[in-house]
Amino acid sequence: MPVTESMFLVAETRDQPMHVGGLQLFAPREGQTAEALADEFSERFHAATDIAPMFLKRPATPAQVAGYTAWTEDDDVDFDYHIRHIILPRPGEIKDLLRYVSQNHGALLDRRRPMWEIHIIEGLKDGRVALYSKVHHSVVDGVTALRLLQRSLSTDPADRSGTAFWDMELVRRRRRRHAANKTDRSWLDRVTGAASAVVDTAGQVVGMAPAAARVATAGVFDKDYVAPLQMAPSTILNQSIGSARRFAAQDWPVERLRAVARYQHMTINDVIIAMCAGALRSYLTDQGGLPDESLIAMVPVSLHSEGDSDGNAVTAMSVRMATDLESPAERVAAIKASTAGAKNVIRGLKPLQSLALGAATIWPLAFATVPGFVEYTPRGFNLIISNVPGPETPLYWNGARLDGCYPVSIPMEGLAMNITVTTIGGKAGFGIIGARAQLPSLQRILVHLETALSELEDLPPAS
Amino acid sequence: MPVTESMFLVAETRDQPMHVGGLQLFAPREGQTAEALADEFSERFHAATDIAPMFLKRPATPAQVAGYTAWTEDDDVDFDYHIRHIILPRPGEIKDLLRYVSQNHGALLDRRRPMWEIHIIEGLKDGRVALYSKVHHSVVDGVTALRLLQRSLSTDPADRSGTAFWDMELVRRRRRRHAANKTDRSWLDRVTGAASAVVDTAGQVVGMAPAAARVATAGVFDKDYVAPLQMAPSTILNQSIGSARRFAAQDWPVERLRAVARYQHMTINDVIIAMCAGALRSYLTDQGGLPDESLIAMVPVSLHSEGDSDGNAVTAMSVRMATDLESPAERVAAIKASTAGAKNVIRGLKPLQSLALGAATIWPLAFATVPGFVEYTPRGFNLIISNVPGPETPLYWNGARLDGCYPVSIPMEGLAMNITVTTIGGKAGFGIIGARAQLPSLQRILVHLETALSELEDLPPAS
Repeated sequence: MPVTESMFLVAETRDQPMHVGGLQLFAPREGQTAEALADEFSERFHAATDIAPMFLKRPATPAQVAGYTAWTEDDDVDFDYHIRHIILPRPGEIKDLLRYVSQNHGALLDRRRPMWEIHIIEGLKDGRVALYSKVHHSVVDGVTALRLLQRSLSTDPADRSGTAFWDMELVRRRRRRHAANKTDRSWLDRVTGAASAVVDTAGQVVGMAPAAARVATAGVFDKDYVAPLQMAPSTILNQSIGSARRFAAQDWPVERLRAVARYQHMTINDVIIAMCAGALRSYLTDQGGLPDESLIAMVPVSLHSEGDSDGNAVTAMSVRMATDLESPAERVAAIKASTAGAKNVIRGLKPLQSLALGAATIWPLAFATVPGFVEYTPRGFNLIISNVPGPETPLYWNGARLDGCYPVSIPMEGLAMNITVTTIGGKAGFGIIGARAQLPSLQRILVHLETALSELEDLPPAS
Repeated sequence: MPVTESMFLVAETRDQPMHVGGLQLFAPREGQTAEALADEFSERFHAATDIAPMFLKRPATPAQVAGYTAWTEDDDVDFDYHIRHIILPRPGEIKDLLRYVSQNHGALLDRRRPMWEIHIIEGLKDGRVALYSKVHHSVVDGVTALRLLQRSLSTDPADRSGTAFWDMELVRRRRRRHAANKTDRSWLDRVTGAASAVVDTAGQVVGMAPAAARVATAGVFDKDYVAPLQMAPSTILNQSIGSARRFAAQDWPVERLRAVARYQHMTINDVIIAMCAGALRSYLTDQGGLPDESLIAMVPVSLHSEGDSDGNAVTAMSVRMATDLESPAERVAAIKASTAGAKNVIRGLKPLQSLALGAATIWPLAFATVPGFVEYTPRGFNLIISNVPGPETPLYWNGARLDGCYPVSIPMEGLAMNITVTTIGGKAGFGIIGARAQLPSLQRILVHLETALSELEDLPPAS
């Protein structure tokens, strides 16, 4: 087992589970009830017994004390354990769904079996059906699991070959396509290629943590290297955490973000950071803990370039969020300056140097599992904000349209909140996961995000 | 924090969660829907914000590495986290309910908050509503939590004062009754007193484990002491376990067990052991692992005597289950001899000596958290079987009749299965909890229990 996988097992504690999640909402096809769609998911999933090897593997030595030296593969998977099906209680509002995800995201995965679960969730009064999936970060080798997830969807609403993301058939379908036309990339790779690389970023950068000190040392002696280390202020986002989680999620039309980006001469990514900055400023003020200095966000960035088949060249930039500034206009200017500066540094670096830059930015994570450590050490940033752009085209599972997609990421010791945004089919889905006891009223962030976006829309166009 | 509480925190690992559970089924009152009853539970529970201190406390130092030296109390409880409400998917059979309990019983409780949860479960096609509760063993000080649970029920079907088991009002009601009539015990204490003492047994005896070696040493040098140590055979029940669970539960009419007891001149407790012996013999044969020698069960026994207000005088007896004998008649004779012999030993001992006996019987538990230990060490018994007799009178919550009550106990390293039986309102509810990966097809035990009981019923009366 490579260290890039085992470190997620080593770093895991009962307060810091190392699984990532995804929450997806599907609208039943014309004439189909939510009940029928949920049963269809359940039947197809239970029928997908030819399982891709990555969803069969588990650590050979599950006890925490043992070294993680090898994976082993189970012969089959106990679907009664891995596939869960529940109905939400009335009234079946989105907040009931988010409560369910909150309650379940804190529970550790069993290491004695393949480390993933999928929950089929009915009972939403809007008639949609949700899938909540949970996969251990050591199991998904970079982008592969997310690619499989997307491969289980189709751009064709008439396609009825929908199956589970672990189905070997998906792997075979892809191989057939590649064999048929070696030079042409499949429609899905064309559509999702860039997105996948950025998805990968979030995983890889977090993944770098334990190796960070080593890489950082290399960076410091390289004269081309520009050290990004700055001190982030102390906030409630940077506490020691418990295992209980609180999850908030909401959509905004990408078109609203794009309009702001156009008028303010900034990127969609900058708009997302500006929304988060406004929202976090309000949230921390509510909680009586807005620091005098600006929050610092760590933002994963893809180094993927056109025609580059390797999606793993990634780094992170350290962005001053300007939460110390009351004026939205001044915040926008400061964020633009901060991300532009950071990007210029990255553009001037070779891939390996960029990786070292990212590693140095996140080096305090290397010590995150030492209890109490986070309370007393300086830190380079306050939270991780990831933006995972996906395809604009609508996607379908057996004719049911994917109508919302929200990442459920990993809070860590000293990093009690994580914001991950995915844009898919014209919607920007914000997934905000936090340590429950440490971050009260987390769902207020959603209201503050809307307020922050409205303020950005009200700004006069940039000259 | 006394060691009798902290040891449950110290002994806990991700593979060996130390919480106990209870599954209760309620039949809605005349004219009430399951939906209305579930909502009534939810409303009353959410309204019970005056919380008894034990349901507010949590370890002051939650990290596993720290010593557990103190409890601290939270000011309030985040009901959105502790109270969960779900609906089972169709068809809503009992097996769907058991699957839900199985999936949830393996998840650790968060130590950063009061360590309990309650799940309100709808969707059973038989129209009943289930409550599944989970409380950490370090939090329930012996019998108190179970007494509170029973105190939230009434013998009067017209009583509409039903509330949550954590409601301080229950404590106050009881104090008022005691103040009004100091010499007369309340109806509930009269009804449940003896039962509670035996309930306590299970907790206390398991609880003794880490101190066992010490007590056992004292016992060995006491010349009145009769050492019960015997070697139990090696079986699949005695493996190192994972965190995933499998729960099976079913009722039998107490009258059937009582008839067998009467005809065979044995106790109800002996009948339960004989049923388990027959069922385990069949189960282990199915699994290809029936040992040549008999399984040994550890059976908690109450030393509670009339007029004794202290419910904590408990011990355990080691019972030869005679699983090596094919003939049900021979098994019954061997079990009767084994329990009669064990009881004679206990009767001749003073309470402290009995405690030492119980401790010696279970001493290998003291080492159960050392990884791999269980695979290589001799053991004194194969599983714990507890019988918790409750009141014969029907009990109600706001007019909804308690229609089934199944304990969900704790599998441990080397003790992959636990059987706990509770008799209440004329039904004997068997709760069988096992480590999921280690005990496949656990639910087959239910069929085997019925077969075993039928075989006992077919025996000629004892002379």
